[in-house]
Amino acid sequence: MSERTRNALVECGALLYGDFTLASGKKSRYYIDIKKASTDPKVLKLIAEEMSLLLREKGLKVDRIAGVVLGSIPLAVALSLETGIPFIMVRKEKKDHGTTKLIEGVCSKGERVLVVEDVVTSAGSALYAIDVLRNEGMTVENIFSVVDREEGGKQKLEEIGVSLSSLVAATDVLRQ
Amino acid sequence: MSERTRNALVECGALLYGDFTLASGKKSRYYIDIKKASTDPKVLKLIAEEMSLLLREKGLKVDRIAGVVLGSIPLAVALSLETGIPFIMVRKEKKDHGTTKLIEGVCSKGERVLVVEDVVTSAGSALYAIDVLRNEGMTVENIFSVVDREEGGKQKLEEIGVSLSSLVAATDVLRQ
Repeated sequence: MSERTRNALVECGALLYGDFTLASGKKSRYYIDIKKASTDPKVLKLIAEEMSLLLREKGLKVDRIAGVVLGSIPLAVALSLETGIPFIMVRKEKKDHGTTKLIEGVCSKGERVLVVEDVVTSAGSALYAIDVLRNEGMTVENIFSVVDREEGGKQKLEEIGVSLSSLVAATDVLRQ
Repeated sequence: MSERTRNALVECGALLYGDFTLASGKKSRYYIDIKKASTDPKVLKLIAEEMSLLLREKGLKVDRIAGVVLGSIPLAVALSLETGIPFIMVRKEKKDHGTTKLIEGVCSKGERVLVVEDVVTSAGSALYAIDVLRNEGMTVENIFSVVDREEGGKQKLEEIGVSLSSLVAATDVLRQ
């Protein structure tokens, strides 16, 4: 867990403690407004540095970084600038005008892609991106997220052979 | 004009010379595939450096950088990381699920916003973004684009009091 990231999330107001009722109706002792972090260049840079460190620590070889539109694109761009690894953008739906490309940017079959996510809850967005990337012949074995809310996403990803590493997990958030 | 940017665009394959027929049916002596540039971290970093220099040269005071989804988001993120100025993202359409926010990220009325664009042709996307931002009470007087195809966009922007500065204009592209 990255203490530095947790502190930065608190300082920029992206991580709030209190009693919250989420959109799902669930109660939560914390609330994450991750866009406050990912649109703040200081925090975004720090997150990219921490993810770059994680990449080196794990000794992962990666050809492309992928972000899902729209929330994860700033992370993908920042990590790309930090590491020099080019990035691609995975669209949520097909563009309705003309082209129907789900992946924007240069990529080829057989390349190893690291997916980055801002917040993983049940991993729906990540599972979608992996599906799109694998359908295009790319290899996806790793996902990095800023926050893992620990609501089953990690397990679902493991079931399809993808390992999730997060900078901050719900357990870390609550262990103040 | 930024010779450095033009050379980088050619080197990464984003700027091609030849005889092209554009989607509009028009003939062109060059073709721009700007996503090749904006997803390549070396070129993206160079573009952000050049735009940051332009910002200083013009002595502009800017509170936020804005990019339009999706093409200009990498530029907005890179320029934000380069300058330390936070960014916002302008969506093309309202999200159909739940929220209807057209602007993602933190911003307030009265702030001075610099819009960044990858390619300006007739400036449709830029005019849309300015409209959204001004409706939210923000001040927009400047747009930076990587390429100005010089097809009337600059004039249209001037008519609504916005000044377009580009790193590379069509005239520069053709003056090989």
